[in-house]
Amino acid sequence: MALHSLGISEAVSILNKGEVSAKELVLDCLNRIDQFESQIQAWAYINHDYALKQAQKSDTDRRKGKSTGPLHGIPIGLKDIIDSAGMPTENGCELFKGSIARQDSFVAKRLKQHGAIIMGKTVTAELATFTPGKTRNPHNSGHTPGGSSSGSAAAVAAYMVPGALGTQTNGSVIRPASFCGVVGFKPTYGLIPRQGILNQSPFLDQVGVFTRNIEDTALLAEMLIGSHDEDKASINTAVAPALLKTSHQQAPVPPKFALIKTAAWYKAETATQAGFEQIAELLGDRVDVIELHSSFNQVWDYIQTVNDAEIATYYDAIYQKGKDIISTSLCAQIERGREVTAKLYLQAKHQRQYLNSILNELFFSYDALITPAAIGEAPKGLDSTGDPTFCAPWSFCGVPTINLPLLEGETGLPIGVQLVGQQYDDARLLRSANWLNQFVNAEADNEK
Amino acid sequence: MALHSLGISEAVSILNKGEVSAKELVLDCLNRIDQFESQIQAWAYINHDYALKQAQKSDTDRRKGKSTGPLHGIPIGLKDIIDSAGMPTENGCELFKGSIARQDSFVAKRLKQHGAIIMGKTVTAELATFTPGKTRNPHNSGHTPGGSSSGSAAAVAAYMVPGALGTQTNGSVIRPASFCGVVGFKPTYGLIPRQGILNQSPFLDQVGVFTRNIEDTALLAEMLIGSHDEDKASINTAVAPALLKTSHQQAPVPPKFALIKTAAWYKAETATQAGFEQIAELLGDRVDVIELHSSFNQVWDYIQTVNDAEIATYYDAIYQKGKDIISTSLCAQIERGREVTAKLYLQAKHQRQYLNSILNELFFSYDALITPAAIGEAPKGLDSTGDPTFCAPWSFCGVPTINLPLLEGETGLPIGVQLVGQQYDDARLLRSANWLNQFVNAEADNEK
Repeated sequence: MALHSLGISEAVSILNKGEVSAKELVLDCLNRIDQFESQIQAWAYINHDYALKQAQKSDTDRRKGKSTGPLHGIPIGLKDIIDSAGMPTENGCELFKGSIARQDSFVAKRLKQHGAIIMGKTVTAELATFTPGKTRNPHNSGHTPGGSSSGSAAAVAAYMVPGALGTQTNGSVIRPASFCGVVGFKPTYGLIPRQGILNQSPFLDQVGVFTRNIEDTALLAEMLIGSHDEDKASINTAVAPALLKTSHQQAPVPPKFALIKTAAWYKAETATQAGFEQIAELLGDRVDVIELHSSFNQVWDYIQTVNDAEIATYYDAIYQKGKDIISTSLCAQIERGREVTAKLYLQAKHQRQYLNSILNELFFSYDALITPAAIGEAPKGLDSTGDPTFCAPWSFCGVPTINLPLLEGETGLPIGVQLVGQQYDDARLLRSANWLNQFVNAEADNEK
Repeated sequence: MALHSLGISEAVSILNKGEVSAKELVLDCLNRIDQFESQIQAWAYINHDYALKQAQKSDTDRRKGKSTGPLHGIPIGLKDIIDSAGMPTENGCELFKGSIARQDSFVAKRLKQHGAIIMGKTVTAELATFTPGKTRNPHNSGHTPGGSSSGSAAAVAAYMVPGALGTQTNGSVIRPASFCGVVGFKPTYGLIPRQGILNQSPFLDQVGVFTRNIEDTALLAEMLIGSHDEDKASINTAVAPALLKTSHQQAPVPPKFALIKTAAWYKAETATQAGFEQIAELLGDRVDVIELHSSFNQVWDYIQTVNDAEIATYYDAIYQKGKDIISTSLCAQIERGREVTAKLYLQAKHQRQYLNSILNELFFSYDALITPAAIGEAPKGLDSTGDPTFCAPWSFCGVPTINLPLLEGETGLPIGVQLVGQQYDDARLLRSANWLNQFVNAEADNEK
């Protein structure tokens, strides 16, 4: 197996055994990038020398017996709105061209502390919103990779790095993960501090991870949990949830799922609807098809109200300086956001707690909700990053959500199954995801 | 000395010595109330039987050796927007007539845990805003007691109770304390949870206390510090600040003060301006007259923007139900608040942190700021509760502030000196206030 195609845990294992060096691993990833970058364009910034130097230092540290972290020697990509000291952070926007981060973001610092090698910055849609960057879908370069964490999803899907970080304000982790056929995970709002990351919409911005399997997702996400003074929403947990350990564990009883179509089901493409019917059939009595409480019918309005108002506030300086440079659609959103009243904004925000109280009831009976990650496979063309409809309710509620690449669309591109967990019960979500993944794959093998 | 005229600490001391019973103390306070209530009208609700029953229970507990709290047997009044189980909470508004609180607020529970006897509910201005209740100034019943914590200030000033709780959104603790000539203290925003208290403006609402001396203020406030899940702004301090202990302590060096006139100084009446010149002269090199940074010039706009927007949001149900019942001025504020944009609201809120960073610099050189509590003595008439101008900057910043009744106006009514401390350094503020109080009183004695 080529080094670049190893997952994080696999690579950690052979690095720890001394079977391979970090330098060899990084070199193989760089070769992979060199080979496919012109086609996929996942990277906003990459520096071979820097990556190799880090790898050599990693190997030296290991030889010297310096304590090695759980990600020692592992190459990771960072969405280009996340600061990594000395690298540019260009936010997918001309205004930030050449702007170098002076300090590490919380997550970059954590990754480095745990031994990871920051390979470079991955392409983001414009200012982490909707206007696409240059990245193409690794499965078919005529299709969008999704966004706004386009480069992170594509780089992991194209075996350029075993893991990458992204962010989700509406659907910016789960949708590109779905379109690119990788595992994407957005933990509970507040678990991963956003210090040093572009501030678009503080009520909604959430950090997420991309990997090629659930175990790697659990490991990578667990390394990022913490709190930071500058992110008032970050939660000071006494003990970080044991994502990796729990995700492996066998559930006390097989998990029970609720298939949730939402009021937007009519938007789901035929292949998506059929795929979910199939999964429901496979799961039999392990799944109930249930209707989401009607209070969720306005959730798309709530997320738009909050996002518009906050984007108008936090991108105000960008707008003032750059209204001729940023896209007309983002300008329009900012201008719309300027008109949102404080009352409407606050009332929308208050719905998060109420909607979670409804979800909490569901999680007495169900371990996870199953729902589409996107309306279907990655749409053709590069003008749009696709439709976030199926991500909005969970982004708004701040609940943990994961994409599993279990289905296929009509043209053979991946379709994601989104599993949604209870607030702060990220570990149970990953365990249930692991169970579902094994169950579906075993059934698929049986059919062969 | 009559029992009703004892301060909290004095009463605690003789109760603990067994020289007097809680029943005797409460009875004497009730007699005092009976004697003056028709003139002062400090109480929205009082129940002699309930108060006496609590006092008897307090005495029984003491005789049985049950653990007694630091406020064991002390009668306390609660502003009528603060829930005390079984008593009405009418919020100074017809809409809430006869509405009985089913549960204790956080502060009522704390008071009871520490042994205090809830005497009843004190009059609040309409919904803790500006339209006066029935209360009159104990020093001259033709003058306003200030508001919105009108009854709490008046009841303490009239020796009906040794302590009472109020709240301040703009100037609703410090101003009535100034007008009624008592000590009023509003600790740092977030130190006292507001669970179970009318929610007017969560960014600004702050609990405060009224007593007749600084020691009692320190004791009473210290009992209320804590955190509660339902008040997200309440701070989970590992250790509550030792207000009582520190307020007694001698400062390592005599404190240094900054006399701050603010951009609103022109509003201060002649007697106020003269009084502050006198204090500055008395303090000599212990005080500098300094100008507040020009960033504070808009603070009155900020507090209005935030308060209007939040009142429009949180009083929306009241407005919908009661627009014909509530005052036209409150209606107008709510209607104005509905038009505030989220962007303006968020930008105003963000100023708190910035302005505190400016104040924090000052507190390297100064222990407390000295500034008027109000523009002058309590205005004549009962149509208005007075002008909150001099309270707004400190309410907005959420810094601790205390009123000391050190000056007198032209008609002999009290004028308060407001001392302002650093965020989270409430103990130092009280120690400095204690020093200033002793210093000014000693100088006054010298003059005699």
